[in-house]
Amino acid sequence: NFTYHKLDSVEAAFPFKETPTVTWLNIDGLHEVSILEQIGTHYEIHPLIMEDILNTDQRPKVEIFDNYIFIVAKMVSYNGGEGELEIEQISFLVGKNYVITFQEREGDIFDSVRERIQSGKGRIRRSGPDYLTYALLDVITDHYFLVLEKMGDIVEGLEERVLLNPGPGVVSEIQGMKRSLIYLRKSVWPLREVLGGLIREESQLIQDATDPYLRDVYDHTVQVMDTVETYRDMTSGILDVYLSNVSYRMNEIMKVLTIIATIFIPLTFIVGVYGMNFHWMPELGWHWGYPAVWGVMFIIAVAMLYYFRKRKWF
Amino acid sequence: NFTYHKLDSVEAAFPFKETPTVTWLNIDGLHEVSILEQIGTHYEIHPLIMEDILNTDQRPKVEIFDNYIFIVAKMVSYNGGEGELEIEQISFLVGKNYVITFQEREGDIFDSVRERIQSGKGRIRRSGPDYLTYALLDVITDHYFLVLEKMGDIVEGLEERVLLNPGPGVVSEIQGMKRSLIYLRKSVWPLREVLGGLIREESQLIQDATDPYLRDVYDHTVQVMDTVETYRDMTSGILDVYLSNVSYRMNEIMKVLTIIATIFIPLTFIVGVYGMNFHWMPELGWHWGYPAVWGVMFIIAVAMLYYFRKRKWF
Amino acid sequence: NFTYHKLDSVEAAFPFKETPTVTWLNIDGLHEVSILEQIGTHYEIHPLIMEDILNTDQRPKVEIFDNYIFIVAKMVSYNGGEGELEIEQISFLVGKNYVITFQEREGDIFDSVRERIQSGKGRIRRSGPDYLTYALLDVITDHYFLVLEKMGDIVEGLEERVLLNPGPGVVSEIQGMKRSLIYLRKSVWPLREVLGGLIREESQLIQDATDPYLRDVYDHTVQVMDTVETYRDMTSGILDVYLSNVSYRMNEIMKVLTIIATIFIPLTFIVGVYGMNFHWMPELGWHWGYPAVWGVMFIIAVAMLYYFRKRKWF
Amino acid sequence: NFTYHKLDSVEAAFPFKETPTVTWLNIDGLHEVSILEQIGTHYEIHPLIMEDILNTDQRPKVEIFDNYIFIVAKMVSYNGGEGELEIEQISFLVGKNYVITFQEREGDIFDSVRERIQSGKGRIRRSGPDYLTYALLDVITDHYFLVLEKMGDIVEGLEERVLLNPGPGVVSEIQGMKRSLIYLRKSVWPLREVLGGLIREESQLIQDATDPYLRDVYDHTVQVMDTVETYRDMTSGILDVYLSNVSYRMNEIMKVLTIIATIFIPLTFIVGVYGMNFHWMPELGWHWGYPAVWGVMFIIAVAMLYYFRKRKWF
Amino acid sequence: NFTYHKLDSVEAAFPFKETPTVTWLNIDGLHEVSILEQIGTHYEIHPLIMEDILNTDQRPKVEIFDNYIFIVAKMVSYNGGEGELEIEQISFLVGKNYVITFQEREGDIFDSVRERIQSGKGRIRRSGPDYLTYALLDVITDHYFLVLEKMGDIVEGLEERVLLNPGPGVVSEIQGMKRSLIYLRKSVWPLREVLGGLIREESQLIQDATDPYLRDVYDHTVQVMDTVETYRDMTSGILDVYLSNVSYRMNEIMKVLTIIATIFIPLTFIVGVYGMNFHWMPELGWHWGYPAVWGVMFIIAVAMLYYFRKRKWF
Repeated sequence: NFTYHKLDSVEAAFPFKETPTVTWLNIDGLHEVSILEQIGTHYEIHPLIMEDILNTDQRPKVEIFDNYIFIVAKMVSYNGGEGELEIEQISFLVGKNYVITFQEREGDIFDSVRERIQSGKGRIRRSGPDYLTYALLDVITDHYFLVLEKMGDIVEGLEERVLLNPGPGVVSEIQGMKRSLIYLRKSVWPLREVLGGLIREESQLIQDATDPYLRDVYDHTVQVMDTVETYRDMTSGILDVYLSNVSYRMNEIMKVLTIIATIFIPLTFIVGVYGMNFHWMPELGWHWGYPAVWGVMFIIAVAMLYYFRKRKWF
Repeated sequence: NFTYHKLDSVEAAFPFKETPTVTWLNIDGLHEVSILEQIGTHYEIHPLIMEDILNTDQRPKVEIFDNYIFIVAKMVSYNGGEGELEIEQISFLVGKNYVITFQEREGDIFDSVRERIQSGKGRIRRSGPDYLTYALLDVITDHYFLVLEKMGDIVEGLEERVLLNPGPGVVSEIQGMKRSLIYLRKSVWPLREVLGGLIREESQLIQDATDPYLRDVYDHTVQVMDTVETYRDMTSGILDVYLSNVSYRMNEIMKVLTIIATIFIPLTFIVGVYGMNFHWMPELGWHWGYPAVWGVMFIIAVAMLYYFRKRKWF
Repeated sequence: NFTYHKLDSVEAAFPFKETPTVTWLNIDGLHEVSILEQIGTHYEIHPLIMEDILNTDQRPKVEIFDNYIFIVAKMVSYNGGEGELEIEQISFLVGKNYVITFQEREGDIFDSVRERIQSGKGRIRRSGPDYLTYALLDVITDHYFLVLEKMGDIVEGLEERVLLNPGPGVVSEIQGMKRSLIYLRKSVWPLREVLGGLIREESQLIQDATDPYLRDVYDHTVQVMDTVETYRDMTSGILDVYLSNVSYRMNEIMKVLTIIATIFIPLTFIVGVYGMNFHWMPELGWHWGYPAVWGVMFIIAVAMLYYFRKRKWF
Repeated sequence: NFTYHKLDSVEAAFPFKETPTVTWLNIDGLHEVSILEQIGTHYEIHPLIMEDILNTDQRPKVEIFDNYIFIVAKMVSYNGGEGELEIEQISFLVGKNYVITFQEREGDIFDSVRERIQSGKGRIRRSGPDYLTYALLDVITDHYFLVLEKMGDIVEGLEERVLLNPGPGVVSEIQGMKRSLIYLRKSVWPLREVLGGLIREESQLIQDATDPYLRDVYDHTVQVMDTVETYRDMTSGILDVYLSNVSYRMNEIMKVLTIIATIFIPLTFIVGVYGMNFHWMPELGWHWGYPAVWGVMFIIAVAMLYYFRKRKWF
Repeated sequence: NFTYHKLDSVEAAFPFKETPTVTWLNIDGLHEVSILEQIGTHYEIHPLIMEDILNTDQRPKVEIFDNYIFIVAKMVSYNGGEGELEIEQISFLVGKNYVITFQEREGDIFDSVRERIQSGKGRIRRSGPDYLTYALLDVITDHYFLVLEKMGDIVEGLEERVLLNPGPGVVSEIQGMKRSLIYLRKSVWPLREVLGGLIREESQLIQDATDPYLRDVYDHTVQVMDTVETYRDMTSGILDVYLSNVSYRMNEIMKVLTIIATIFIPLTFIVGVYGMNFHWMPELGWHWGYPAVWGVMFIIAVAMLYYFRKRKWF
């Protein structure tokens, strides 16, 4: 059977510790330290663990004690508009008949699990706290896939922009994407170890029947890491394409401009010659001198263009 | 003995589960979920495994249960014209007397195995489902070699184009090749682990006599990975050659153009001098002034050319 | 109970070796070799260990003997103004009922521990030398976080400067930051091994109750290493952004300047033509010749600008 | 005792299988498949092994069976003129009293071993097939050293050319060298594993007395790998030197040319001023106007040169 | 007790083999193969080991036999002036009551050990051949520190030169430094394994009391490797700083020169206009035409400078 309570004080939850049913306590926000202290005392949690729950710079990890398992995981989300990766720490205390989750911020990330419990479908109502933990970790891993999907769209967008319309802002964006991927990897890499630890674990708090499910989440984290690595390689590739494109375009422009200049500089020299004021310059007196100079200049220009063309300079 | 059926409904296959002969069920396409559910129920497959079969983003892996082995592999093919790598997920369920293969798309990739079964030559008719699995995995690995061969041709083509006729599109193509190689590595690297897992496996579903064959496929995957790494190094090398070639050509052009400009600029200055309208400019009145200026300019031009030549600037 | 002595001579400390209480000897500065020799003799320390204490180029390490444990760690601090990383070697000798710490320089880094001992709060007064060692190592690890925080500020500042106001000094600063990170990693990487060694250690000098605390510090060192790696990736990214920004700005400038030059060079040629002094140049006599030349030049300039614009050159 | 036969048919060799003496069969060329099949049948070799012998794309490996050991190695040679690395596959079948070697091409690479057998000096006549295998593998490893020596000469040559006379072909040659080193590494890396496998092997086909000899060849392969890595680092370094040299030379040229242009452009402007035809230009009438302009231009030129010099621009 | 002999013939040393005292034979130079052969025979050394002693391309390694231990190490020295790394192979044969060292060249590198033996201070006279081996290996490791110190000076010098006075030779020197560091790493990396092997070794030739000393040298080799890696990172950083500095300086020069050219080119065009010889050019007749042109040109120049300044181009 199943009941759902929104509790005002944490003491109200303590009677459930003795019941044979599975209790899931979900704590939103870590600012009320007194609640955490009460939980710590009541459930006999090591003080260092309580410190770890409060410190949101924790690395994902699993610590296994005789009467409970402590898990730290990182929930990620990606705000489309801003492109900022948000990371929230979720801690789990898994005991014989309870699961306590600590979220850094209020949110509805576990709503899907709550619904599955309410609807009573699937294994979740029939299984123990270890399966509930699996279900919650699965939700967290699914969020990684959502984030990666959005990132994949951005990477593809970057790729197109680099080819069509490269501006200087692209480099910053590529670097931002790279940094997000670094943070993502920093969160998911130890999460994999957490799951590996839970699978190898001989604790009686994790039943053998839950192992395939944990291995499934483990496979998902491996996949996330694979995709992160692929995106890193791709963003590096995009940077290379961008740099070589910018340099190619620049080269093309400089080449054309320089060729124009190079053709006109000798011509300007020639007209300069006949602008000199020497008293004795026989060419100036020739009747066809002026058209002849035009002819010479025309020939020089064509010869240069032909030569440049032959050497495939434009 | 041997029979071949094209079945309309999946139930028609279930009687074979009880026969002592080896049954190979090949399911083309994963859109009819009801068929998969029937198979899952009838052959007592874990629901998570059935999910894995449907999810085509799976990473190649092997999972060994008491009564069956689950294998995920990736079949690759390369469409010459487009240069796009196509990846198709192939799942295997290997039981005591059956092999069930799930293909993402309809196709004739396993025709060669079908022919070997029909012709009855070789070990394939005399051996169990483990040898059949080997034969199918061998076909998949052979496709990697085909893809690599095509890629090798493209890499060589890129190499030649980079030396003879480098354009800006080459960088994109090199990046595309790099990405295809990344995807290829992502598919073949875990396939190696799959085969390693099958060889080390103590399950009675894999007979010892099949081990040398599996080790042979294992060696092939190692070879594929070797070649992929070599191609990656080669494409990086091609990119380096491209970039240094483009920059060398650009330098050559700029150098020649700048030298032309640099020679004519002082000459233009000189003719400018004698184009000035000062009343008192004695040179203008000299009879040999004009030829003398030509002479001076000729000497300057030759001196500059000589100097540039001596310093090996062209 | 608890007493605090500032000792003038080291012999005054030796009687405490026989008392059942825990003695913490803190030696500031390593210049008085005679004091170290007396301690070495009195506490029966291996001469090589005494040499290691004196040699401040030691790598962090742990060596476990029957009657004492020797630990070398590195304390880091970062002088905001100069941006120089300062590294100080701290050695520990942990025995059955004593802890001896050797600091390279005088300083108050362990004041917080001293206060906790004096106030008598927490486990520190109730626990043995192993817990005291933990408390001191924890202080050292906390300093790494302080240093990383300051470095994080500098990295962010570099990032902004690179985008807004890049000068040539930025590269040196980025390299300096990179080098500081290398030194930091060199100090913290073996510190992690030290802590791992203490946790795995079966010596009766480390009680099992201290293990969770040591594991906590171990986790901190892993976090420090993670952050160091992230900062290294970020500084590399900043360098890339800087280089591509500088090159982009340079390209923009050269492009505009070259376009100006390219437009005026043909015009200068034209005015040069009509500056020639040929006797027979019919255009010179035309009444509208002069405005016509202006018109032609205007058309040429506009055509060139239009062409450059159409090809998106500016 | 010792006999040497050049056999026409492979059946002639089969009687030796039963004799207590050591038989060494050397097969040149793999085109006569029937011979290989006869050997396979007669010596009871697994059909997959026979396939491996024929497939010359094999990776070096060792496979140990009850009655024989199968070894694949790669013989390398380097054709000075062409600079092409040639790789030939050599397979070994080592049994109780025979060694069969399969060469891809006819050649005299094993002549030195043949001579040592004929001369009867050393251990080779007194030892079993394992020592003969060692001797043959030693010859193969020695060829790696020969190839590396030639490559070392080429690397040194490249280094000198890069400093004295860098042309665009150098990059292609460096890339070719890099690729040869990749192939070399691909051949020698698994060869090391082959030897490691033979040393660790508990098979009675390898006597303990041969282990030191195998370890010696093992050390050689490690040395080859070390040298390959060193050459790879060196070629990368040469590429860096080349690129920075080319860019430095280019910069020098552009700098000088641009300085010449920059000095003459203002001077050309000045002479242009006094080439204007305004009716009222008082300077034109001054008697010392012309020399004064020369003086002004001289001063401008010297000032610019001085300024450029002071800023160390040339 | 202690005696020192400079022996003319190697046979003179053989009687000491039977005495209970420790004998240290130091062989300078490897050209007299006959001496080595006599030693090999007399001390029953495996012929492959004798070959290894003669082959000075050996990789540092340790090989442990029943009655002796064979060690190869590399002594490095750095000739300040030339900056060339010199590597000399030192081989050790360590038996029950003897140590034989083979130096490639004559030299006094072991003089400090000789003096310690003569003076009789410390453990060296009281300990066995294992301690003597430690003392000699310690000398070799100390030389690495000397070399690294000199290299550190050169790296710092390079750093300064790169900032103050970068020339093209710097790249070659940086590459030379990199290569020296590669060679250094090639020598010290396996030396660490040698020492690790000696520590783990269960041979009765190494007494337990010597283990702490060997671990001390082991720590030194780890430190050498750390420093080598740091220097490699630093030289790479210097190369980056150099390249970005050169490119920055070049950009600055080109920018200033191009700005000068760009300002004068339109002005030259204007003066060209009024140098045309059209009969009807009204401006030429205006009284203030000439000063007006000067004014216009002045305004254009100032406007351009203002625009360039506003866009921060200089």
